[in-house]
Amino acid sequence: MSFALTLPDGSKKEFEAAVSVADLAASISTSLGKSAVAAKVDGAVKPLDFELSEDHEVAILTDKDEEGLAVLRATAAFVLEALVKSKYPEIKLGQAEVSKDGFFIETDKDDQIKVTELPELEKALQKEIKNGLPIEHVQAAKSELAEEFKDDPYKSELLQSAGDVVDAYKLGDFVDFGFDALLPNTGKIKKFKLLSVAGAYWKGKSSNPMLQRIFGTAFFKQADLDADMKRRAEIKERDHRTIGRDLDLFFVDPKVGAGLPYWMPKGATIRRIIERYIVDKEVAAGYEHVYTPVLMNLDAYKTSGHWAHYREDMFPPMDMGEGEWLELRPMNCPSHIQIYKHHIRSYRELPIRIAELGMMHRYEKSGALSGLQRVREMTLNDGHTFVALDQVKDEFARTLQIIMDVYHDFNINDYYFRLSYRDPKNTDKYFANDEMWERSQSMLKAAMDDMGLDYVEAEGEAAFYGPKLDIQTKTALGNDETMSTIQLDFMLPERFKLTYVGADGEEHRPVMIHRGIVGTMERFIAYLTEIYKGAFPTWLAPIQAEIIPVNLDAHSDYAKKVRDELRAKGFRAEIDFRNEKLGYKIRESQTQKVPYTLVLGDDEMNAGTVNVRPYGTEEQNTESLDEFIAKLTDDVKHYSRED
Amino acid sequence: MSFALTLPDGSKKEFEAAVSVADLAASISTSLGKSAVAAKVDGAVKPLDFELSEDHEVAILTDKDEEGLAVLRATAAFVLEALVKSKYPEIKLGQAEVSKDGFFIETDKDDQIKVTELPELEKALQKEIKNGLPIEHVQAAKSELAEEFKDDPYKSELLQSAGDVVDAYKLGDFVDFGFDALLPNTGKIKKFKLLSVAGAYWKGKSSNPMLQRIFGTAFFKQADLDADMKRRAEIKERDHRTIGRDLDLFFVDPKVGAGLPYWMPKGATIRRIIERYIVDKEVAAGYEHVYTPVLMNLDAYKTSGHWAHYREDMFPPMDMGEGEWLELRPMNCPSHIQIYKHHIRSYRELPIRIAELGMMHRYEKSGALSGLQRVREMTLNDGHTFVALDQVKDEFARTLQIIMDVYHDFNINDYYFRLSYRDPKNTDKYFANDEMWERSQSMLKAAMDDMGLDYVEAEGEAAFYGPKLDIQTKTALGNDETMSTIQLDFMLPERFKLTYVGADGEEHRPVMIHRGIVGTMERFIAYLTEIYKGAFPTWLAPIQAEIIPVNLDAHSDYAKKVRDELRAKGFRAEIDFRNEKLGYKIRESQTQKVPYTLVLGDDEMNAGTVNVRPYGTEEQNTESLDEFIAKLTDDVKHYSRED
Repeated sequence: MSFALTLPDGSKKEFEAAVSVADLAASISTSLGKSAVAAKVDGAVKPLDFELSEDHEVAILTDKDEEGLAVLRATAAFVLEALVKSKYPEIKLGQAEVSKDGFFIETDKDDQIKVTELPELEKALQKEIKNGLPIEHVQAAKSELAEEFKDDPYKSELLQSAGDVVDAYKLGDFVDFGFDALLPNTGKIKKFKLLSVAGAYWKGKSSNPMLQRIFGTAFFKQADLDADMKRRAEIKERDHRTIGRDLDLFFVDPKVGAGLPYWMPKGATIRRIIERYIVDKEVAAGYEHVYTPVLMNLDAYKTSGHWAHYREDMFPPMDMGEGEWLELRPMNCPSHIQIYKHHIRSYRELPIRIAELGMMHRYEKSGALSGLQRVREMTLNDGHTFVALDQVKDEFARTLQIIMDVYHDFNINDYYFRLSYRDPKNTDKYFANDEMWERSQSMLKAAMDDMGLDYVEAEGEAAFYGPKLDIQTKTALGNDETMSTIQLDFMLPERFKLTYVGADGEEHRPVMIHRGIVGTMERFIAYLTEIYKGAFPTWLAPIQAEIIPVNLDAHSDYAKKVRDELRAKGFRAEIDFRNEKLGYKIRESQTQKVPYTLVLGDDEMNAGTVNVRPYGTEEQNTESLDEFIAKLTDDVKHYSRED
Repeated sequence: MSFALTLPDGSKKEFEAAVSVADLAASISTSLGKSAVAAKVDGAVKPLDFELSEDHEVAILTDKDEEGLAVLRATAAFVLEALVKSKYPEIKLGQAEVSKDGFFIETDKDDQIKVTELPELEKALQKEIKNGLPIEHVQAAKSELAEEFKDDPYKSELLQSAGDVVDAYKLGDFVDFGFDALLPNTGKIKKFKLLSVAGAYWKGKSSNPMLQRIFGTAFFKQADLDADMKRRAEIKERDHRTIGRDLDLFFVDPKVGAGLPYWMPKGATIRRIIERYIVDKEVAAGYEHVYTPVLMNLDAYKTSGHWAHYREDMFPPMDMGEGEWLELRPMNCPSHIQIYKHHIRSYRELPIRIAELGMMHRYEKSGALSGLQRVREMTLNDGHTFVALDQVKDEFARTLQIIMDVYHDFNINDYYFRLSYRDPKNTDKYFANDEMWERSQSMLKAAMDDMGLDYVEAEGEAAFYGPKLDIQTKTALGNDETMSTIQLDFMLPERFKLTYVGADGEEHRPVMIHRGIVGTMERFIAYLTEIYKGAFPTWLAPIQAEIIPVNLDAHSDYAKKVRDELRAKGFRAEIDFRNEKLGYKIRESQTQKVPYTLVLGDDEMNAGTVNVRPYGTEEQNTESLDEFIAKLTDDVKHYSRED
């Protein structure tokens, strides 16, 4: 019995008798023997004690490998499970999983584990590591394990999909299964951190019980852990939910409605400015703004196809009696179609551009909800243009130009374009009108080329009803996000029998263009909060100038005079009248990220000037009030950009 | 057998034998004999053939009396019933009723009577009148009538509440009952008009079948009918539904949602301007504007008491799973309470003024819906102020001042104030806090007196939860309407356990003030449409300047230059590019009630001027474009008022 193991560099090692992964590593080199944590055997991760007794491709995994890190984290998860089980014998355990930046375990007991318990658990885990206890790898009969887990419904359920003999691991009395590989000793875990707790439905189904997840991470080296902690702090610092709370922009309270944000005055001010900005921009660009109801007869969504294909994202319909069922709209398109259909339309009127700040409702799973990012009630900067087929190119270019202008105003520079076509090999998967598809796809491409824009082309990524352009931005956390979109739609005009009277006096079918410029107010403002880190540019800042009298008795009147003059010019200025120290107030104004802090004392009062500290600088400028107002006016007018 | 009849002047007439109403009238005077149409006998209206045989108070009714007119109209309704029954033998008839300005009959058949059939019915009715057919008054046994109406479920149902012997009337074969008195001959109907048809549920219950009402009116004299037709035309001319259609402001389509208006671009423009105006006004007055969700957990409305007392006006709750029930909010108060409760509040912050353009939903009966006036989805200019009890007077005065300023800007002058107190004899019917009631009522009164305002006091008209001021306007049709309201509320702060920390460091309960300035956008704009007759002042007009080139070829470029300059200054200007005659376009601009029509020809183009025709005048002024822009700017700035 001789066999060969093929190593990653292609070399082969011949063996006469079975050899463990650990022995193989040691046989290659002493240092590999020491740093080995597991191996990949024919692509599958196996532990150090795994016996090799026939031909395989084998790669030893060390602390340098991603998969090696995963083994470390799986081990940490396993030891943490053992720990909570010994602490709370009645606890039930769900899945233990390794994710791309850490691990979590799922626990369930009457009084769930709280975030305040994490330091204590961390300490106990540290002790386990220090004790260097052995972790034993065993082959257990499924029936034996079933007996072991008979009181734990989650583990029992997980066990069902296992084979008759199960790879299991033991730490003292504790046993668990479902890991590819664990390290052989708790002492190997090295550097770890417990991070947070959060509720999650068992297997992600909201009809299942809610378990408590304990999140942590682990590394081989302290430096890596430190770097990760720093990265997490940065993410948290940029997280719109954290900033939203610190700057008092909004809140969500699941007790009064999950996914239903309340916009506090400061957040509402930002939103109002953006809403007015975008409406004015669209009206100037020839859009006709409308208001349409958030409720519609369910029949309209049957006609549109939403009810057939999108029902699970829709709210429950309401029985109004007399056979009338009303539905909270999941989209505004059918509403704008009503506006179009209200008159007979002529080719002379096209393109007809209908826009609205349209409130919509989508039934997101409660587990998926997050701050302003994923909500159940949202207001979309929505628009629908109705054009003749030969107008598609011009209207598309025009729409895209507006989007780019708006991005420029908001200082959004990190984005790219993705043109999505139908799959040419599967044209039957798409709305059937070859001429429309071919002409419109080439028009979109030609428009992009004429505008000299780079883009990615994605065949097979179009919607069922037409090709589209997505404008992809990067979030502050580095994720790709579709911020804006221009989608052609050949289907709804057909389903709702839309027509216009052509120059020939005959009825023709228009093409519908769905477009969003800044998307929903909720998601856009979440995005802006993160890219600005809460330091909103002056034109958007809820407070543009915070006025601090050096001495409340001596300088309050002058502060009021300055405030009132600023307000009379339409600026948002506040005075800090609190009985606090000057230094505290100045720091507070910086914490609140107010663009301009004005400190007013004797000098300023006597000279009629203001002492200006722009946010995020060490500058202090003394200016006449008129100079400051001129600067502020200019700042707002140019959206706080240099160019 | 002798008896005495007492006449209205107190005189008595003695009779030895029974005498009919007609005979009595003739016995008083020949002219009264001729003009008599019925009589009031001991307060009840009786027909001319009614036999008087004992002591009564009797007043002869003629064409001069309201009740005489009612008899005429009842007769017209009866003859109309006979007519439709002979035309459509299968038709079912409901109630025939006389109203304060006419009459209606209710009909039901598979294919309901249409408005287009009215001229034909009118002609047939005219013929019946000309033929002078006798209407016979009979006493019929209930059982006999039941047989007669056995195929008509409505009449059968009406018959159930009659006595054993029923007063009925016959015209040829047709028989009906339920009238106090009818005229004895179709020839007496004189002047009448059929007006309209409309669906109405049997007995007003929406679970009953929908009948078709045919409306008409009748008079003794042509001059009265003519005056009434003129009055109806005026009402129609002012009706916001008619104007809304003619000026393309909005529409409602019961097929996509009863009571759910769609705001077309022009109506939406008016609404947007008003929304921005009112938000800016409130922000300047220290209100903090917020956005809160239209959905809320049903529990909040249980706490507030809405679910217990207001449920039938609320939409059906939606089951979101996991025990969560969401409700479309019928009011915004609980939402603003969430905003208040989100922070610990100090006495130093009070008054806290929270405002919102808050969308709400109320389940109005479909029969009650009307244009923008009565809707199911509405956006309220809502606000809630949280104050300490001793701040009530100042805050009340301040709020009232804003309301009066806003009325002034909209040129609303016809209103009065009504202060509503609790009933001092029934204090247990009101929220129990005597000190709050007494102090706050006297504060409201003192505030009104300090401001030198006249007001009506209404004891027992307060809400359960506190006293209030209603500002009553008159609609264009002369009806009283509560446009604005300032209501104190002691109850919700208690129910939601609202507190603020006082100067003493203790928790105190604030008073909540509900206030609406212009009410809902829907009702306010319906009201404005009617008082302005659609001629919106320049600052609100969807199109402020309609530009008409005398010759499309020669003057379009100049027209565009003028339009673009106006638009650059923020004005709403359009060019009429249609291929129509100049006179037609000018008339059309007047019909659309555009404030300024600019006609541009050679003279204007060469001199760089505009020829301005202000709406509703015969004026034509030639002005430089700068002069016109200055005038327009001034017009808008002053809300088109003289003062």
